[in-house]
Formats: sequence, structure tokens, C-alpha cells
Amino acid sequence: MRAIDVIVKKRDGGALSREEIGFMVDGVTRSAIPDYQISAWLMTVLFRGMTAEETAWLTDAMVDSGARVDLSDLPGIKVDKHSTGGVGDKASLVLAPLAAACGVPVPMMSGRGLGHTGGTLDKLEAIPGFRVNLSIDEMKAALRRTGVAMIGQTAQISPADKKLYALRDVTGTVESIPLISASIMSKKIAEGIDALVLDVKTGRGAFMKTPEASRRLAASLVSIGQASGVRTQAIITAMDAPLGRTVGNAMEVAECIEVLRGGGPSDLVEVSTELTIRMLLLGGVASDRADASRQVAHAIASGAGLERFRRIIEQQGGDARVVDDLTRLPAAPHRHVIRSEREGFVQAVDAELVGLASVALGAGRDRVDDAVDPAVGIVVLSKPGTPVRVGDGVLELHYRSADRRDAALARLGSAVVIDDVAPPPTRLVLDEV
Amino acid sequence: MRAIDVIVKKRDGGALSREEIGFMVDGVTRSAIPDYQISAWLMTVLFRGMTAEETAWLTDAMVDSGARVDLSDLPGIKVDKHSTGGVGDKASLVLAPLAAACGVPVPMMSGRGLGHTGGTLDKLEAIPGFRVNLSIDEMKAALRRTGVAMIGQTAQISPADKKLYALRDVTGTVESIPLISASIMSKKIAEGIDALVLDVKTGRGAFMKTPEASRRLAASLVSIGQASGVRTQAIITAMDAPLGRTVGNAMEVAECIEVLRGGGPSDLVEVSTELTIRMLLLGGVASDRADASRQVAHAIASGAGLERFRRIIEQQGGDARVVDDLTRLPAAPHRHVIRSEREGFVQAVDAELVGLASVALGAGRDRVDDAVDPAVGIVVLSKPGTPVRVGDGVLELHYRSADRRDAALARLGSAVVIDDVAPPPTRLVLDEV
Repeated sequence: MRAIDVIVKKRDGGALSREEIGFMVDGVTRSAIPDYQISAWLMTVLFRGMTAEETAWLTDAMVDSGARVDLSDLPGIKVDKHSTGGVGDKASLVLAPLAAACGVPVPMMSGRGLGHTGGTLDKLEAIPGFRVNLSIDEMKAALRRTGVAMIGQTAQISPADKKLYALRDVTGTVESIPLISASIMSKKIAEGIDALVLDVKTGRGAFMKTPEASRRLAASLVSIGQASGVRTQAIITAMDAPLGRTVGNAMEVAECIEVLRGGGPSDLVEVSTELTIRMLLLGGVASDRADASRQVAHAIASGAGLERFRRIIEQQGGDARVVDDLTRLPAAPHRHVIRSEREGFVQAVDAELVGLASVALGAGRDRVDDAVDPAVGIVVLSKPGTPVRVGDGVLELHYRSADRRDAALARLGSAVVIDDVAPPPTRLVLDEV
Repeated sequence: MRAIDVIVKKRDGGALSREEIGFMVDGVTRSAIPDYQISAWLMTVLFRGMTAEETAWLTDAMVDSGARVDLSDLPGIKVDKHSTGGVGDKASLVLAPLAAACGVPVPMMSGRGLGHTGGTLDKLEAIPGFRVNLSIDEMKAALRRTGVAMIGQTAQISPADKKLYALRDVTGTVESIPLISASIMSKKIAEGIDALVLDVKTGRGAFMKTPEASRRLAASLVSIGQASGVRTQAIITAMDAPLGRTVGNAMEVAECIEVLRGGGPSDLVEVSTELTIRMLLLGGVASDRADASRQVAHAIASGAGLERFRRIIEQQGGDARVVDDLTRLPAAPHRHVIRSEREGFVQAVDAELVGLASVALGAGRDRVDDAVDPAVGIVVLSKPGTPVRVGDGVLELHYRSADRRDAALARLGSAVVIDDVAPPPTRLVLDEV
């Protein structure tokens, strides 16, 4: 088999065979096919697409490029959650302890933030001492002890994805639903989970800007999951404004603790609860939606979720006292409040611009190897729909240096729109697949 | 400027600026942009195309990647000819001496055969001693002396094309009209010519399989030529069957000498004459088509064309006695005749299969660095339209080893089609642009 023939077949609109797809992925993994042929192939896939069958084969081949974790010796239906990436999206830190507190084993492997979106690992590492680099054995031990582990991907998981993603990132081939789907699902399937809940974001701050594109991605992801024996559900949620009130690693941890204490902003509570309910149903620990909903509410009200988060932090080497004392989290030395220059209602807080501004502050990274500053970030003082008067605070920057503050202010530009009339109410959970 | 932004712009259907195109070509030439980004970009160009303006800028940038020969100190309007590649297409060896004999300076830079198509340099080198690697100064001296030089491209001519072509060849991005156009025209413009006649082949043995595709390529080539101040004309000619009776380097030289002696197969005579007429008109040595036609006929009848060919061979170190004695050309030790198994009329002789079979014999190359055997080849004993009886010879293989003969026979398969009724007459020169 020759790479050029596979490229030409896809270029001319053909559907590739399992063998052809396996040949390309194996060539990537073993560096047996040169990058210039892989990138040409990726571009043909971007233009021509892939059938559901091809996408499933691609995912399989990527799973097979590395190890597949075997969690079958652990009891229970193991359920993970994945989000396609948002701004201020910290739901994982809420739902993992809640689902575990309700009896669902959660072997969660997450990623780091890149571009304007944040990542669960960066948030967890804002807790002093928290270790995300557990081995598979440590992960299993953690699952046995507390029913949950929150870790980063090990190098053995889908090495083909690592190489393909690096190449896609520099060749304009990121924006392809089959490639995105296979990338996400290969890593999730290799984790050894039984079921998966997906939060596919849509809107200005999301990778997919329209509900239609998000629905197509969701359908593709669910189809791959089912084909691989992983029970998969997806919800599509709005990502026009940041989720919750905070964007920045330590302040997002604090916000999650508030939710686990029974407080927190309503949008974050709604998304986290919705995802947890679905995890309970997939995990077989709730008889129906009403039962699941009751269990989640109880896990919050009883403090069981918060207690489970404390144990997660302890078992992964972090300072669990943050759960009772938020001042133990890193904090930035300076604050700057952006105030409204007019009276009216907040119409929009642009999630992408806020995300980019938080990267400028140091909360995220432009390049994979950038370090992040856990303390800095942005607080949304006035969420969309809020009435404001002249001088009211709209955004609050927590920053370390004036340079970075100014860079963030420059990026924020027209992030917040204020107008005379109240904006129409919007829904958060838009659809399910 | 970043390569990724140029890739994404073209991927999304945008028209690139002169600066963006120059940036990519310069990045290729200096190896400053990695191959995987160049190949991704080439694939976007294949899918999205380029405007006439973009294609002209691409050509310009490729010309500027190397040296541009200055022939302005030589008198006359310098005219070259280029063919997009065919099987048995040896017209250059006929028209260069004819046009020069009629007073048109012909600075001809040609290529080698690749795949199933032949190349002028390989044919010339079948003449014992013939040197195609003249320096630019030697080329100019030859032009002054005999009005014609037939050489290979020097390394200084469009180095970007060399790199781009190597990459296109292995990434499925050869078949793009803007990329093909810029590749051809950058080399021709860099030669320092004033005018150019193009023979765009169409059909089974051609790169472009349909007249429509050939017309689009011809229009693109002519448009680039005009934009660069090179007066350019194109004719579209049929390449379903081999041109003339022979496919193989030494035997093709012999066939050209026959045409210059006033004989030779009518299709080769027709295409060579048509192209020469246009060279005379562009070169300003004929007042009109009738005048040009008369001059070409006279150059053949008087022996002036043959005499000019003798001088070309002499000045480039070859054994000019081949002009009088064809047995001085290399000949293969063995022959094998394929005979008709039925009575009827030859409907088709598949140029591509005959070309591939001649490569199997050793007359052409599958890879750029393969050596060719000047002596071997295939004679078309029965051209399309010929009536045949059982046992009549159809093709004759001139071969060196039984292995290669058998490989050629395997490739020939159904190359020759014979049926009861005479095929409809076909035209050779199909269109002009």
C-alpha cells in the first residue's frame, strides 16, 4: 500500500477502507509516512469528509496506536464526561465529585487549555500540590478508594492523536468533524470507560460557532461511541458568554467549591447538574431522571459532593484545606475593574474575547509548552441580562503585571455590549443527541 | 506573515495576495517553510483553485526564485515550443530545425520523460555523443551559430518549481491547473523567450483526459504568458493513440529524420508542421499562414531542415552521420511482433498503455533517477483505421531482455482494439487558444 494512493483516493471523493485508514494511522504512529503526505491527506479529509464508518475506523486505528486501559476489574459502570471546550467551563470539577458521591465510578482523563479555552488539568493544578500525572495503576487505586480519579492523558493513550493533532494545528486541518471526532473519541475509548457524556459547546466562545455544526459534531461523536461499545450521550450547550462568573484557574476552582457548597452561579449549576444527571443514568445508579435529579440535589445539600472533592484533592497530593478556606488558593496581587459607561442591560459578554484576554493575563496558553499563572483571571461582574448604571463594574481583571493587564484590556475591546432594552432570555442546554 | 494563515485563507476559498504567494514560494525555495505546510497549501490550491491573477503571481514568484536568462543581445524574436506530454510525441525534433531553417531563433529547453510520456532530452541523447547539458553561454553561442539550441533546464531556472514538483508528485497535488500552469510557464518565462507555442495534449495518453480540461489548461497557460509579456499561443491536439509510428528514443529520432527527409507518418507531419507554422508567425518571419506554410514545406523539400538538424547535432557533440545513416542509432537486439487474432479495423491503440509498456521495456522511467535504454521501444505497425487480417502485425516490440519484454506484454493488455467496421475519422488538431 502507498500513502500517495490513499491521498488520491480521498482527494477524488472515495471512501477509504479500514486497511487504508489503518495504514495511514500506523504510518503516523511509527513515523513511517512523511509528514508532508500526512498533512496532504488530512487536507483531503477536511475537504471530502469521512463517512460514519470511515470515522469509526479512524478512531479504532488511533485507539490501537497505543494502550487501551483495562478497568474491567473495577466494579460498576465507569462513566466519563468530555467537553469540546469553552470559556469558564469548569463543570468537570463539580460533576466528577458529585457523580462519584452518587456511586458512579469516574475515571476522568482531561486536557490542558489551549487557545482561548481552558482545561481541567490547569484548573486542578491551581490547587497547591495537586498532581494530575498519575500512572494507570495509581489511577486504578484512586478509583478503588474514592470512586474517582482526575488525571492527564498518559503517553500510552492514542499516540497517533498526539502526532496528528500537532500536524493539524500547523496545517489548517483542525476544523474537520471526522478528525475532531476521532481525536476526542480515540482518547476516551482508550481510557477503558463504559459510558460517556459529552458537552458539545456552541456559539462565539466555542469551537463550533453554530448549533448545526455542533449537532453534526455531536452526532459524529455519539455514533463513534456506540460503534465502539461505549454508551455515549451528548448535550449541546450555549457558549456565547463565559460559563459562571470566573475565567482563570484558581478562581474557577473557588467557584466550583461554591457550587458544591450549594451556591454558585445558576448557569454553572444548571450545566453541571444536567451532565451529572446523565452520568447517573448511564452509570445505572438512578432509576429515572427524577431519581437522578434528586440524588444530585442531595449530594450537594448533604455536602457529600464537597466531601468527595476534598478526598480527591487529598488522594492526588493537593492541599485539601482549600475546600474550607478559599484564601489558600493562589490570588493575583492586583485588580482592575472595567465599568459601564452607560445605563442599560448587558446584552453580551463575548466568551472568545474574555478567553483571549485571560490568556493575555497568563491564565491560558498560546502555545502548548507555555506555563500558566494559576492566580490571574477575569471575573464577570455583570452577566448578560443584568441591568447596569454608569460606573457599575462589568469585568474585573485579576492580574500580576501592568503589561499583561494592558494586553488583556486591548483584547477585550468590545467584549461587553450594553443596550437600552433587556436581551431576550436564552437557553443554556439547547439540544441533546 | 505565517504559512498557517495563508493555508487557512486558501482553504476557506479566499484569493491570495501577491505577497502571500511570494511568501510561500520564497519559503519553498529557501526551505524556510516546512514541507508539511507546503503540501497542505498545495492541496488547498488543488481544491479551491486560483484566479488568473493568483496564477500569474505564482508564476512570477517561481520565475524570481531563480535566474532569468537574458537573450536580448541576440537578434530576432526568440520562440520556443512546449508540449504537455504525450506518447511518441517527437515533434520538437522536427520543428526546432525547421523553424530555425526558416529564420526563427529557437532557444529550446526541454525535459526528460516521466511516467508513460517521453521527453525530448532522452530522445536527443539517443544520438551517440549528443550533449544536452549546455551552459547558458554555450546555449547563446549555439543560438548565434545555428539559430537553435536544444538543452535541458539548468539548475538556476525556477528552483522553486523543482522543489514544488517533487512535493506535488508524492502528495497527490499534481492535477491542479494553476499549479501545472505555473510550473510550465515559470520555466519557459525564465528562458528569456519572446514567444511560445504550446501543444496541449488531450485524450487517453495525455495528462488531461478531456478536451474541456485541456482547453482550461491552455487558456490558463496563454493567460500567464500574455501577463508576463511572452506572446503565447496554444493548440489542443489528440493524444489517444501514439503520435507517429514509434515509441522509444532512438527509433523516434529516426522517425523525425524521415519527416525532415520529406517522409514519415502523416499525423506526425501534421502536428509538427502546424506548430512550426505558428512559430514562424510568432517569430515574425512569415507574413501570413499561407506564407508560413509554404516556407515550412520548402524547408522540408529543400533539405534545409535536415541540414539544420545535422548542424544542431554537430554543435552539441553528437554523431551527425545518423542523419544520413539511421543504422548508426542504437538498436535493440530482439524483436517481438504482436499479431491480430481477428479480421477487422484497428479502432484504437491506447497511447497510455503503449507508453507504460515502453517504460517496461526500458525506454522511459518510473522514477526521476532511472536510466533509460535508448535502443528499445515499440513500433505501431497498424495505426487506428488500418484494416487488418488474422496474423497481421499490430505492434512490434524492440527489446533487450525477455523479462522486460514480458513485462511490456503484460502492460499492453487490451491496448489495441479491433472491430468489424472502420472507426469514424478523427481530427488531430482539435482547437486553438
